Amino acid sequence: MRRPTIHDIARRAGVAKSTVSFALNGQPGVSESTRRRILGVADELGWRPSSVARSLSSAQAGAVGLVLACETADPALMRLVAGFESVFGPREVGLLLQFAPRTELAVYHSWWHQRRVDGVLVVDVRVSDPRIALLGELGLPAVTLGRSALPSVSLDAETAMRTAVGHLARLGHRRIARIGRSPELVHTAEHTAAFLDAARAMAMESAVCVTAEPDAAEAVRRLLAARPRPTALVCDTDVMALGALGVAAQLGIRVPGELSVLAGEDSPLCLLPHPALTAVRVDLHSYGAAAAETLRCLLAGDRPPDRTFGPPCLVERGSTGPPVS
Amino acid sequence: MRRPTIHDIARRAGVAKSTVSFALNGQPGVSESTRRRILGVADELGWRPSSVARSLSSAQAGAVGLVLACETADPALMRLVAGFESVFGPREVGLLLQFAPRTELAVYHSWWHQRRVDGVLVVDVRVSDPRIALLGELGLPAVTLGRSALPSVSLDAETAMRTAVGHLARLGHRRIARIGRSPELVHTAEHTAAFLDAARAMAMESAVCVTAEPDAAEAVRRLLAARPRPTALVCDTDVMALGALGVAAQLGIRVPGELSVLAGEDSPLCLLPHPALTAVRVDLHSYGAAAAETLRCLLAGDRPPDRTFGPPCLVERGSTGPPVS
Repeated sequence: MRRPTIHDIARRAGVAKSTVSFALNGQPGVSESTRRRILGVADELGWRPSSVARSLSSAQAGAVGLVLACETADPALMRLVAGFESVFGPREVGLLLQFAPRTELAVYHSWWHQRRVDGVLVVDVRVSDPRIALLGELGLPAVTLGRSALPSVSLDAETAMRTAVGHLARLGHRRIARIGRSPELVHTAEHTAAFLDAARAMAMESAVCVTAEPDAAEAVRRLLAARPRPTALVCDTDVMALGALGVAAQLGIRVPGELSVLAGEDSPLCLLPHPALTAVRVDLHSYGAAAAETLRCLLAGDRPPDRTFGPPCLVERGSTGPPVS
Repeated sequence: MRRPTIHDIARRAGVAKSTVSFALNGQPGVSESTRRRILGVADELGWRPSSVARSLSSAQAGAVGLVLACETADPALMRLVAGFESVFGPREVGLLLQFAPRTELAVYHSWWHQRRVDGVLVVDVRVSDPRIALLGELGLPAVTLGRSALPSVSLDAETAMRTAVGHLARLGHRRIARIGRSPELVHTAEHTAAFLDAARAMAMESAVCVTAEPDAAEAVRRLLAARPRPTALVCDTDVMALGALGVAAQLGIRVPGELSVLAGEDSPLCLLPHPALTAVRVDLHSYGAAAAETLRCLLAGDRPPDRTFGPPCLVERGSTGPPVS
């Protein structure tokens, strides 16, 4: 069953394609009897108005875009994407995805000028991020996940780190460390600052922050080689926390007796190891949905207020406990 | 900087929108001088032909679609998607993504009739899969990842299982088990059959297959409660293998001495635990790209031959070793 086109209708009705187009779009220049005949043929062939055609007239692409800077195996991203989709899917707004490691800016340019998207969602916002200025200049409606000069939805780093550090303080830890993604990310900068604030407020003896890039396992090894070494590790992601458990096992460091490990994001992966990972839970699906709702507002012509999403909560499992001294 | 529309050009040039449309699309019905004036205005305003408009005339949506049946945290999917994208991205063909747990068939219907996509990629093909018949009926060009009545690219289950079981046989294992996804999936059916064939060919004493659904950890616990219990476990995915390591740790079963664990797919996750996971490596990015290439062929009017992708290879790490007897 091939989809009928304007061309098929024109051939069957014995008229020019432009005449069919006029008739179907209700434009002048076609006699009423011809219009009726054409509509009859269109109906007969099972023709339906295409979203492409509708898009053209309303100047709407009917899609929003997401450009990913790198090919990632990050399971968290799929949960965000599912959240975006929960808002746009039911409204028949497509989600256009592109991986563009080096050509991210060019993709925005071409998407916008070719009217492929009505707006975009931006993840992994950096402290100094050329995308923000470009999107502003283009006038391409955008919402960032993480604070920026554009409309944004961000996570509640303060509550997350107060929750994590507070949990460790109550267990009796005095020397703690945090391992995060690139320091260039707004997410990392905010969480690092909030971690250090919380550590200060809870009078920790030491609080160290390191980056997991380029090699998370190596960073954990360095942290655990310090003397005296930290007794608890707050990891930015579930994957980093799994890696920290692996390094501890390799070094013969018992979890949680000699080292507590806490994941800064919860996921099914946190349930896999033994002991299972204590985590700060952020509902990434809802976070993605909140960002999508903000973009929807923006596309409807409103200027949505910046939102902080949260608050996160603690899910206590086996990987954290009192330090043995 | 708002994107100029045909409406803006019409207003500036003082003509009807339809006249602008004719002029820009090189259609008759506009005098040469008017056409030149309109093109001048369009140029002045920075107007560029939109893909939507081009799509309309060529009856191409300029996008391919992927409907996901469930919201998944499966990291493997992102690697496939990145592979799709590596083929379509550079050709400015968009990848449209939709999560549709219960409405997958309806999405294909509406995408096709609204001309939102030119073709689709289908993952997680089931043994009895209503999508295959529907896509055939609609005439919507489709390529399945996994064998079906439609053009397909599938994994080399025979080589994968011969590689995995051969490795375990050489180490001296005689009782092995496999844990896979739903038995309704073609992938599971093919790999289960290939696993049993390989076990028979290598004269294993016992070879058991179980499903990880609904609870993978529970399935592993049941397998390990059997007497005599299997000494090696072939897990379909990296995530299942991580879970098997966790269950073994919880039960105090040493890996690899008392239990070898092998992941049926390799990924960065396999490097995280200690011992790291031995895996059968399939390049999912290239697998995705191969499927996308097949769809591209199909869209170009060719009938591509069904392809088997592979062969997979063994990556030996710490989680497999000779069984202690």
